[in-house]
Amino acid sequence: MGQKLELIFPDGAKKEFEAGTSTEDVAASISPGLKKKALAGKINGKLIDLSQPIPESGEVAIITPESEEALEILRHSTAHLMAQAVRRLFKNVKLGVGPVIEDGFYYDIDSEESITQEDLPKIEKEMKKIVSENLAIQRLEVSRNEAKEKFSGDEYKQELLEAIPEDEQVSIYEQGEFFDLCRGIHVPSTNKIKAFKLQNLAGAYWRGDSDNKMLQRIYGTAFFKQADLDEHLDLLRQAKERDHRKLGRELELFMFSEEAPGMPFFLPNGQIIRTELENFSRNLYTKAGYQEVRTPLMMNQRLWEQSGHWDHYHENMYFSDVDDKRFALKPMNCPGHMLIYKNKQHSYRDLPIRMAEFGQVHRHELSGSLNGMLRVRTFTQDDAHIFVAPNQIEAELKQVFGLVDQIYSTFGFEYSVELSTRPEDSMGADELWEKAEQSLENVLKELNVDYYLNEGDGAFYGPKIDFHIKDALKRSHQCATIQLDFQMPEKFDLTYVNEAGEKDRPIVIHRAVFGSIDRFIAILIEHFGGAFPTWLAPVQVQVIPVSPDAHLDYAKSVQAQLEEAGVRVQLDERNEKIGYKIREAQMKKTPYMLVLGDKEVADGTVNIRKYGEQEQNVVDKEAFVSKLQEEISSQSL
Amino acid sequence: MGQKLELIFPDGAKKEFEAGTSTEDVAASISPGLKKKALAGKINGKLIDLSQPIPESGEVAIITPESEEALEILRHSTAHLMAQAVRRLFKNVKLGVGPVIEDGFYYDIDSEESITQEDLPKIEKEMKKIVSENLAIQRLEVSRNEAKEKFSGDEYKQELLEAIPEDEQVSIYEQGEFFDLCRGIHVPSTNKIKAFKLQNLAGAYWRGDSDNKMLQRIYGTAFFKQADLDEHLDLLRQAKERDHRKLGRELELFMFSEEAPGMPFFLPNGQIIRTELENFSRNLYTKAGYQEVRTPLMMNQRLWEQSGHWDHYHENMYFSDVDDKRFALKPMNCPGHMLIYKNKQHSYRDLPIRMAEFGQVHRHELSGSLNGMLRVRTFTQDDAHIFVAPNQIEAELKQVFGLVDQIYSTFGFEYSVELSTRPEDSMGADELWEKAEQSLENVLKELNVDYYLNEGDGAFYGPKIDFHIKDALKRSHQCATIQLDFQMPEKFDLTYVNEAGEKDRPIVIHRAVFGSIDRFIAILIEHFGGAFPTWLAPVQVQVIPVSPDAHLDYAKSVQAQLEEAGVRVQLDERNEKIGYKIREAQMKKTPYMLVLGDKEVADGTVNIRKYGEQEQNVVDKEAFVSKLQEEISSQSL
Repeated sequence: MGQKLELIFPDGAKKEFEAGTSTEDVAASISPGLKKKALAGKINGKLIDLSQPIPESGEVAIITPESEEALEILRHSTAHLMAQAVRRLFKNVKLGVGPVIEDGFYYDIDSEESITQEDLPKIEKEMKKIVSENLAIQRLEVSRNEAKEKFSGDEYKQELLEAIPEDEQVSIYEQGEFFDLCRGIHVPSTNKIKAFKLQNLAGAYWRGDSDNKMLQRIYGTAFFKQADLDEHLDLLRQAKERDHRKLGRELELFMFSEEAPGMPFFLPNGQIIRTELENFSRNLYTKAGYQEVRTPLMMNQRLWEQSGHWDHYHENMYFSDVDDKRFALKPMNCPGHMLIYKNKQHSYRDLPIRMAEFGQVHRHELSGSLNGMLRVRTFTQDDAHIFVAPNQIEAELKQVFGLVDQIYSTFGFEYSVELSTRPEDSMGADELWEKAEQSLENVLKELNVDYYLNEGDGAFYGPKIDFHIKDALKRSHQCATIQLDFQMPEKFDLTYVNEAGEKDRPIVIHRAVFGSIDRFIAILIEHFGGAFPTWLAPVQVQVIPVSPDAHLDYAKSVQAQLEEAGVRVQLDERNEKIGYKIREAQMKKTPYMLVLGDKEVADGTVNIRKYGEQEQNVVDKEAFVSKLQEEISSQSL
Repeated sequence: MGQKLELIFPDGAKKEFEAGTSTEDVAASISPGLKKKALAGKINGKLIDLSQPIPESGEVAIITPESEEALEILRHSTAHLMAQAVRRLFKNVKLGVGPVIEDGFYYDIDSEESITQEDLPKIEKEMKKIVSENLAIQRLEVSRNEAKEKFSGDEYKQELLEAIPEDEQVSIYEQGEFFDLCRGIHVPSTNKIKAFKLQNLAGAYWRGDSDNKMLQRIYGTAFFKQADLDEHLDLLRQAKERDHRKLGRELELFMFSEEAPGMPFFLPNGQIIRTELENFSRNLYTKAGYQEVRTPLMMNQRLWEQSGHWDHYHENMYFSDVDDKRFALKPMNCPGHMLIYKNKQHSYRDLPIRMAEFGQVHRHELSGSLNGMLRVRTFTQDDAHIFVAPNQIEAELKQVFGLVDQIYSTFGFEYSVELSTRPEDSMGADELWEKAEQSLENVLKELNVDYYLNEGDGAFYGPKIDFHIKDALKRSHQCATIQLDFQMPEKFDLTYVNEAGEKDRPIVIHRAVFGSIDRFIAILIEHFGGAFPTWLAPVQVQVIPVSPDAHLDYAKSVQAQLEEAGVRVQLDERNEKIGYKIREAQMKKTPYMLVLGDKEVADGTVNIRKYGEQEQNVVDKEAFVSKLQEEISSQSL
């Protein structure tokens, strides 16, 4: 290290500083505003505390609330802030670990008094007090033995320090009377922490070992702005309300049984949604020139050896004995489609062949990892294999892209795209890989699609494009996939006769749009919070006569007219209070309620309450029927 | 035996005859016409030869060509006639057995010279000669030892006689120089046999044992009238042409693979038919108040033990290990539906609950018994379980009857009905059985349905009604079934709360209409000979421009208009001769061909060739589209 630091800024500018200069000094040298916003520094990719002397020349960056790394630093400091508050409020508090996790942080606490959920606001109040005290947060670097002395009487820290080599330095962070063993990095003072929330409390064994003492773990989160925190808490509340398992039960969409863990039972309402989704795809398939097939659910093991699934996947497959031979329940539809392709001779004139199947597959998952319909052991793929000649790849990929876009936009999903290229353990010639990756890139560029490049993350048989949809709660789900495959055509010796009359090898494009129909339904449930667009809703219209005595005939005629128009309609003819009936239909999130009383009977009208809207509308019943038909057939959101 | 015979005639009349009177004498005593028609007699249910003295008093009947037993007698005598002809034509002929089988007869022959297919007409010619010789056919009753002497040198007859007790009488039938060991009964003379046909030749081991000598088996059939024989042979020829395996291949409807014996692969054309059938049912379900569900394909073995399938069916089930537990692939959908029923509390107000599933089941069949799609190892049932209160049984049964009738008449199927009642090994209280059988009978009577009673042939859990459809070739196929089940609700402890607020047990009606969709498709293929009604046809319209150069634009506009109208249309734009294209579409049995040339382009018309019709029609294209839409939506035959 010389006397001078040569620092390179993100914009490429270079500047010299005296040795011992901190990031804070650098920020101050640029502007007072930047000094105020600065939280930490980064030198050659490594985070450092704001006040720490920059240890070497190189690329420097000033971390502000806008930086990618800022939230993690803030949450780490908020964890310390919470621990300090707990120390002040409870007797004899010792601390376990306090890491940052996705969307927040936790701290494990060993306190003489037990902390309850009701204590959390009190802790938050004390945290605010410490914020207003504006304590400086300082890093101390000490020897392991010095640290052991500082934490004497704290068996947890002693145990952690014991695991560190004796000659190593360790860091301790201090703020006011509080200090803890910590690698950092932290914000420079407690007043940088403003928007935070303690969320809940759980038990956790020290170091995750059930032979150890159970500590109390407090979960919390923090943001730079109160508005961001509020939005986050609101999304969490919504996610809980929209949980597909909860709504699946309440709206009677699906169920599970201990007789078949991870294998969904579709109840009538859920089955309606499933059928609508299948029909929706099927109609698009017809227009896009797909041909639907159906292949057996199990086939001889030797077929799975041929396809490579045995080698790469047999631990997740189920088997059964047929005629004293071992059969596998299909985990994928590919081999069946290869057999269909081979069932007849093909000419270049037949290509592309777009073979689609709503194929039910079985894949083993550990019982602990099952999660409602998001992670199951059997599901139906909207699978297709497209057999193309090499010169058809790009045109076909574009068509698939169009289909994905059309389907996702129907549900109002935004999506992002990832391109994964050749992995280390790939099979096949370099030339083919390059051509395939180039095709995918060309299409992405031609369609002007922004994409994220996952180098080396393709399948062993070819590169792929994955689609990640963003739901209403801004959560991301990987659904559609488009994969180029050169291996399967080799393994099954697929051929077609080209224009020169010679045998040539087709290329297979694997693609799925929903991915798993079952999982897609789970995503839809959460995306729409159970309030499905009318075309998907299990019951589209609830007809409620004000008085079953006086208005039932009219209600029945409205029901009949709607049924005739193909609408899923329910008539509530029970002798219950009108308010009760309305509330019940609202609970079921039925898109339309028609409340029919004297006036409606007299005028031939319907009084419409649309789900989620306050105002009521009275319209002519024919007008309602035709407007509704239009809404359904156009799949309006 | 007294001096007099007292005979009772089918109309109840009694008359005395001298001992020794034959049926021929009795017939003669009634009318010369009857004597001429008489073929054999029946006394107290036992057949006797026409000339044989009637052995005892009792109920007598005269067998004429119209009698139920006549065809079997005729065919038996035709077998002898054939054997006699073979003896005359070939050297050193010994005879094995010569029984009547369904639709005909065969005789096993050991001849020094080998008989070929080309010899059959020669044998038929000789048979006709023997008919014209009008040889009397006579029964001889001899002791076993006398018979052994008569058949000396014939190792086959010796072997048969050896198996008979020494003191037993055996019968021999003689006509002219020919005689064979035979139990009878036969027509009185060779000139009664007129319409016959030898069909084919096969090898057969003596007594079916491959250690024995291979004999030649000649198959034939006979009828009383040439017209009946012609019709029968025509049906056989048609059946061969319509064989669903042959048409399935030619029309590319389905395929099989050795990787999954007995498990059909639906090719695109077959899958279209399948989807049409499912949608057809689904629409009817909606109107009939069914709710569709979908249950897992495999479930824990203990569930199948609870349902009783393990006890009654486990040899036909496939198993797989899941989480170290044994799961069974479902052979039936019932248990899954019971679990759905139990998923929530039910009130009498909810009943009937009509739970339907297009449920794919797996049932083991021996590989030797597999037969195209008529007998497979996995198929999809159009299954439903209807949960009813006891007082709802009859109304519900009537509704199911109506549904079956509607579905079968859509395909032009006639059907017959069988009622099967309590079997020996049945479960459940007498009272329930009586009530259930009574309900089924009441409904059959109320609906004025003729039915055949199968006493004691019900399921162990309840009585049932089976429907047998008759296809275009007059073959009968058991398809729909309606079964009452008291056991499953017990086994799964199903309840509903009745009007008095108490828990009550529902009754389950199992029902299927297609039975197996896969098998039903096989039946439809043969019934329609592959020429499906337009609504089912994979391709409904083939558009053929006379010259792709001159008429392609117009052809494309017609295609687009048809597609827009939801019609499955194919455009043949190849540069092939028009006659070739027409023949190809005819081979595919496409319902409509539109041939478009100069005149059609100029006039905006289409030249229609309907499959199976000679004449062509030129109509306005809009008129064609709307007529076709009407034909499809009304599911015209």
